[in-house]
Amino acid sequence: MYQLTARDIRRRNRFCVLQAVYAAEGHTSRQEIAQATGLSFATVGNMIAELLDVGVLAELGYDAPGIGRPRARLAINPDRGTLVGVDIAETSIHFDLFDLAMTALRSVEIPVDPTATEPADVAELIIRGIGELTAGEADRVLGIGLSVPGLVEPEGGVSVFSPYWHWHNVPLKALLEQRLPYPLYLDNPLKASTAAHLWFGAGRDVDDLIVVTLRAGVGIGVVIDGMLYRGVTNSAGEWGHTNLVLDGRPCSCGRSGCVEAYVSAPGIVQTLRELAPASPLISNDDALTIAAIAAAAARGDLIACEVIEKTGHYLGVTVANLVNLFNPRTMVFGDLVASHLGEPLLEVTRRVAAHHAMSDPFEAVTLQLSTLPHNPASLGAATFALEGFLADRETFGSIAARRALRTTST
Amino acid sequence: MYQLTARDIRRRNRFCVLQAVYAAEGHTSRQEIAQATGLSFATVGNMIAELLDVGVLAELGYDAPGIGRPRARLAINPDRGTLVGVDIAETSIHFDLFDLAMTALRSVEIPVDPTATEPADVAELIIRGIGELTAGEADRVLGIGLSVPGLVEPEGGVSVFSPYWHWHNVPLKALLEQRLPYPLYLDNPLKASTAAHLWFGAGRDVDDLIVVTLRAGVGIGVVIDGMLYRGVTNSAGEWGHTNLVLDGRPCSCGRSGCVEAYVSAPGIVQTLRELAPASPLISNDDALTIAAIAAAAARGDLIACEVIEKTGHYLGVTVANLVNLFNPRTMVFGDLVASHLGEPLLEVTRRVAAHHAMSDPFEAVTLQLSTLPHNPASLGAATFALEGFLADRETFGSIAARRALRTTST
Repeated sequence: MYQLTARDIRRRNRFCVLQAVYAAEGHTSRQEIAQATGLSFATVGNMIAELLDVGVLAELGYDAPGIGRPRARLAINPDRGTLVGVDIAETSIHFDLFDLAMTALRSVEIPVDPTATEPADVAELIIRGIGELTAGEADRVLGIGLSVPGLVEPEGGVSVFSPYWHWHNVPLKALLEQRLPYPLYLDNPLKASTAAHLWFGAGRDVDDLIVVTLRAGVGIGVVIDGMLYRGVTNSAGEWGHTNLVLDGRPCSCGRSGCVEAYVSAPGIVQTLRELAPASPLISNDDALTIAAIAAAAARGDLIACEVIEKTGHYLGVTVANLVNLFNPRTMVFGDLVASHLGEPLLEVTRRVAAHHAMSDPFEAVTLQLSTLPHNPASLGAATFALEGFLADRETFGSIAARRALRTTST
Repeated sequence: MYQLTARDIRRRNRFCVLQAVYAAEGHTSRQEIAQATGLSFATVGNMIAELLDVGVLAELGYDAPGIGRPRARLAINPDRGTLVGVDIAETSIHFDLFDLAMTALRSVEIPVDPTATEPADVAELIIRGIGELTAGEADRVLGIGLSVPGLVEPEGGVSVFSPYWHWHNVPLKALLEQRLPYPLYLDNPLKASTAAHLWFGAGRDVDDLIVVTLRAGVGIGVVIDGMLYRGVTNSAGEWGHTNLVLDGRPCSCGRSGCVEAYVSAPGIVQTLRELAPASPLISNDDALTIAAIAAAAARGDLIACEVIEKTGHYLGVTVANLVNLFNPRTMVFGDLVASHLGEPLLEVTRRVAAHHAMSDPFEAVTLQLSTLPHNPASLGAATFALEGFLADRETFGSIAARRALRTTST
């Protein structure tokens, strides 16, 4: 049976406090954090003392309100160190360097040679990219997060299955860690994007959130009570291959009728092909075709509008299923398809979902587009590194021990 | 943002410890509980001291192992008080009285007059039933749990929507509490059944569990990390009205193609009607028809076997969706349909789900029939009363305070 320890609580509360500081976007105070988190002023004070001690936070002077004691202005200390986010995709690897305020300092992008996709080849590219990204300041890196497509086992850092390169049980972390002497965190793009939204997007306002990623593949990330939900083998949220149409379209996974076959970029292009096989909107690049559908629909093109209508119908039915099953507060739609088809697609989706979902959970949920400015996969991967740093026993454990000692000796 | 308090931890650990005592089915020891829960011996010792203090546990003497200190035998103290579970169904209300070891002491069943289903009428029946059930020992009742069909708001004790009697926002708890001076806990049969499985069924062995109820209506209860998952408005798990077949059969809810239209008792009877409109297996009572299908299939009747095959196909597809989305350790199938069609239905379901689910989460899950001996709705309702008693601040808060005082004064 599951049980909680005092350390779980401290870590959880540390995350809560720091999320409130990030959400303040600038500076904040102990009082405001206590209000935002619902934690007691004493608990907030303890957490802040700890975070100041390790240099994650800095005091920027005092506000002097009309009445009462002056309030110390608190902010993230961007110079405490850097975090690296790596988004490994089929054709390229994207690297971002963040300061501790999660401001992107610079980026590197390296193409993947489609004839060299063995684990050792890809590991070599990752090591090279990180070398370029952190040149001259490698000692400032607090941790590296990697978003690896497919099914990932985060604790061991294993790519259990990667659809692009037919990897099976590749111990990627072990391949990297000898030459990258930093804490390494691996998970897949859905989990990473969801972590990014949890810390820096809609998760700032709500604790129960579903992040829907719509691109070449589709999937969801689920946040429950402010925590990323993983399931027992880290594969919760495999929405893309839930069945939408019994005996429907063939899916890239070998099954038929999967959600992905209808609402992914290739699925939407297929809907267009079925409606108008010779449509001039169709190009060889699905992303361009999706952009062309969006532009054509904006000028009233009937076929393009019908593609959006049909896609919104498919999406609405499966979104209704998710609303019924998870009863979330917010659903955020992001990536290629959502950024191109945007509100028009979401409007149809809302209308169809309103019909198919139970009224009570549907009234409780907001469907909205992603507002994250950055690549959510690499931001999220760096967020895993941030979480890892904040959960580090050596950094924070020793402080807790020191504080306990101080308390005892007074 | 969500945060945890020391009180949350204590309550959570108290539940863990007591679940381990119930799971031992007889007596156990501090050592065994520490092993079963993973809690430290010190924490277990604290929790046990508390539970002995309030009389929930009793010491039954000592085991003398060959080596080491004798171990105190611990067991639930059945005589500490009683709990009432009430299962409100469409045609009757079932009442069970349990001792604190959750042994059913006696039952009462009262039919519901179909012409008198106003909230006041039903409240009157509940008050009468509890009066009969607890006659002569009303002062021993620690709490009453009520399983109320439909959508329930547990905190306020409101029946938000009840499909049978078209109740909307009925403040049932408020109607009852003046004449039933006990702690009252309301939730729906799905949540109640799931609580029963969590404490006394498959939840003894696993923390991530989906309980699938298959009767006139169908639904699921989800256990995540050993806790009942409710969603933001307590309607998580509305699986029965997720879409299975686009533009499929009309459902009792007014939509079409819902899971319930295919795998509920009426849905299965409908499948039989479509295959063999004049089948002698069909009677006016769906429960009898389901029993007849089971008996006919057992003797090799082709139509009955095909009904099971088709039902298992529908069930397998939607079970695969749940496995992909929730990635649970165990799925338990219970109630009317599961108890009649049992393993034959589950066999087809497993085969179809194995094809439709992602292989990794499917390998991680076990699909099994319920083994709970008792009516899970009334047992679960009583379990809510048990949880309420264990979370009671007056009972346990004062002990914690007393203990703190003792510690300070030493």
